[in-house]
Amino acid sequence: MAFKKITAADIAFFQSVQGIKAVQTDAEALENCSSDETEDLHYLPEVVIQPQTVAAISAIMAYCHEHNIPVTPRGAGTGLSGGALPVYGGVVLDMRAFNKLIALDTRNLQVTVEPGMITQELQDLVKAAGLFYPPDPASKGSCFIGGNVAENSGGPRAVKYGVVKDYVLNLEIVLPDGEVMWTGANVLKNATGYNLTQLIVGSEGTLGIITKIVLRLIPAVQHDVLMLVPFRKAVAACEAVNTIFMAGYTPSAMEFMERDALEWSMQYTQATGISLPDDIEAHLLIEVDGNNMDVLYKDMEAIAAIVQRFDIDDILFADTHEQKQMLWTLRRKVGEAVKSNSIYKEEDTVVPRAELPELLSIIKELGREYGFQSVCYGHAGDGNLHVNIVKGSMSDEDWNNKLTDGIRQLFAEVVRLGGTISGEHGIGLVQKNYMDIAFNNRQLQIMRSIKQLFDPKGILNPGKIFAD
Amino acid sequence: MAFKKITAADIAFFQSVQGIKAVQTDAEALENCSSDETEDLHYLPEVVIQPQTVAAISAIMAYCHEHNIPVTPRGAGTGLSGGALPVYGGVVLDMRAFNKLIALDTRNLQVTVEPGMITQELQDLVKAAGLFYPPDPASKGSCFIGGNVAENSGGPRAVKYGVVKDYVLNLEIVLPDGEVMWTGANVLKNATGYNLTQLIVGSEGTLGIITKIVLRLIPAVQHDVLMLVPFRKAVAACEAVNTIFMAGYTPSAMEFMERDALEWSMQYTQATGISLPDDIEAHLLIEVDGNNMDVLYKDMEAIAAIVQRFDIDDILFADTHEQKQMLWTLRRKVGEAVKSNSIYKEEDTVVPRAELPELLSIIKELGREYGFQSVCYGHAGDGNLHVNIVKGSMSDEDWNNKLTDGIRQLFAEVVRLGGTISGEHGIGLVQKNYMDIAFNNRQLQIMRSIKQLFDPKGILNPGKIFAD
Repeated sequence: MAFKKITAADIAFFQSVQGIKAVQTDAEALENCSSDETEDLHYLPEVVIQPQTVAAISAIMAYCHEHNIPVTPRGAGTGLSGGALPVYGGVVLDMRAFNKLIALDTRNLQVTVEPGMITQELQDLVKAAGLFYPPDPASKGSCFIGGNVAENSGGPRAVKYGVVKDYVLNLEIVLPDGEVMWTGANVLKNATGYNLTQLIVGSEGTLGIITKIVLRLIPAVQHDVLMLVPFRKAVAACEAVNTIFMAGYTPSAMEFMERDALEWSMQYTQATGISLPDDIEAHLLIEVDGNNMDVLYKDMEAIAAIVQRFDIDDILFADTHEQKQMLWTLRRKVGEAVKSNSIYKEEDTVVPRAELPELLSIIKELGREYGFQSVCYGHAGDGNLHVNIVKGSMSDEDWNNKLTDGIRQLFAEVVRLGGTISGEHGIGLVQKNYMDIAFNNRQLQIMRSIKQLFDPKGILNPGKIFAD
Repeated sequence: MAFKKITAADIAFFQSVQGIKAVQTDAEALENCSSDETEDLHYLPEVVIQPQTVAAISAIMAYCHEHNIPVTPRGAGTGLSGGALPVYGGVVLDMRAFNKLIALDTRNLQVTVEPGMITQELQDLVKAAGLFYPPDPASKGSCFIGGNVAENSGGPRAVKYGVVKDYVLNLEIVLPDGEVMWTGANVLKNATGYNLTQLIVGSEGTLGIITKIVLRLIPAVQHDVLMLVPFRKAVAACEAVNTIFMAGYTPSAMEFMERDALEWSMQYTQATGISLPDDIEAHLLIEVDGNNMDVLYKDMEAIAAIVQRFDIDDILFADTHEQKQMLWTLRRKVGEAVKSNSIYKEEDTVVPRAELPELLSIIKELGREYGFQSVCYGHAGDGNLHVNIVKGSMSDEDWNNKLTDGIRQLFAEVVRLGGTISGEHGIGLVQKNYMDIAFNNRQLQIMRSIKQLFDPKGILNPGKIFAD
């Protein structure tokens, strides 16, 4: 794509716009927006702009639209598919100043928030009012709610409560030409025209810049119980997942961790108090929540009885708040732990839940065939398995070329099982060349036409989702 | 729009297509597809085709696309916005032969079904396997699941379990030019490209013809309790709805019925056993469900205590299956009862739940101003109020002209309250001229562009959603 390079005149215009906190071109600011949490990628923008008002974003977009300047919106930079990377340079729109709670409507169990609020902060704010916003990506302590909406994030509790898309009622967006519009209405049911809200959720910042988010909330849930179950066979852990659901239980979390995932996270977090016998291949972290402790204990006992039909070691029941925190930290830090251990690529596979044991077997078989080691973990209750392929001793040549064939084959198997190539991380930059595995030409052509319709000049977050 | 009229040559082509059960041009067949449950509208198609295979639909669409012949897909004809009416004549694609269960996947809690299956039949089939498909429009005994998906239907249990869009995982559709494609994957989480599935749900048969539906299911719920609460003031009933939710309870149904709604339904169904004292203005029908009877009773007692803070008469607790059935029949038959009583127009207003009392007051005020009588009922837990405006003694002149202004004003108030003009019935034919109240020009232009993208010739279900 042929975009205009940014000149001093462009910078002068950006500086003249009202409602902008900073227009930065210094090396440090550009560097700070050149990467995210995806592998070791690096793309420098030409300018970083921190807008504070919708009108400012509108003015910037109208200008960039007119002058053919690429714009990449950026949240907290915690993305795992490179969605916030300015691969064509241009403007990074740093949304950190858009961090206000606009309205907490306790009468209607809704919250209106700006996209730059940290997800955990939002959860805490609504919790203080007796309410609950469930989606909780592993990075919830640092990621922004806007990025969560852009990527349709999930997290452990999606298995019971659904993903981000299930909570978004309405969005205010700035279109690529600068016009501002809402996508829907602040209602629980809506059969009025096409669902533009759900078209924007998960569109990875390629159709519009999210400036306000209206979320539905639910009443706070008062209690939860948590247990960690060690399995001697990883495939058996996957099988147990489905057995629990088929028995009629819907845990509020059902997380799978291969041995390496837990072990590396234990080392990374310097956790103590968990034994990891040599014969354990995988763990399930199972949480049940609700408002009645008797019911919860009964459910937990029933689930314990189910997993005991498999070849397991002693179940660890988390008795205290601290113990629960420790187990959740171990789970949440797996990604960072793997990253700190080796160069890696993370694939965000998702299949119908019952196909998990087969998926895991396929991954290991492909690893043997293509010579890669994998560490698998994720939201087993949703069939969403993160496959961390670690470089280890693999040659650069194999890592950059041969491995691509292995990943293509993995994704082909995922699609054959009824699944798809991203469950919650999005396509962004790093998976876009695999989109032809998930979709045929017509499907892709429809998606590209939608992009064209919203963004005829292709200036908004270019280089994402679609193969070049 | 200038469409081609159907000729003998076209009919001969349709008859030559494999996989078609019937090509009908007799007066009775055309008449049967000329109306639905929307008011007293009447539009004759030129031919009714009953396809039995996806390939047959593909061949018909390719032909109609080439020859510029309008095609209107039709389910059970229970729609309340005229979505299935062939307003430009042409082909009605009668989907009744598409009524098979393709796969009930109990391992993954999913079902794949054809669009022509009756919703109740689908619910019964999955229930026999210990599973639950919650969305239950009032017409569930006769409507088709395909129509439910096309309209994004709701129903009483949406308040706890969500609407149709919350259960659709993947759709097979035939595009207006005859190409067949899937919209997504059979997974619970999906962050792979734009959400085409949610674009098709609720698109009212204007973007593609749904031929297969993959729905997620949940484990069957074992128990429910039901109570009918008579309120002396209708506005107080609306207020009680919100009080219950704010206390942290999420009933599985929370239905509002104005006095007339219940009275007319009692007459229509010849119900006995319910007293309706003169001073009662409205009722709430409240259901709580779950797997633990102790918890249910406790919740029911707490809810009873909440409603007793309002000015109510004696609560009726439904003790037996028969009593529950009777109360639900009364609720489900309100629409038919009103229809049998007078010519009417039904508006499907939806607002944030807490705004219901104000909405009800506004409706009555507008009724006084414009001289109409209204019977209101609906899914109060979702803020979704059906406003049946009955013609009664209103002159034809007022009914056809003055009333339109009243409805415009009602919808303007609904939008002012944060709501929109259809919660679950869709826009179809009868609400399309009000779309400018819910959306501005840019929003409408984006929706029209999406229509254009899927259906450049505008042959699929023309005359719907968008004003002429």
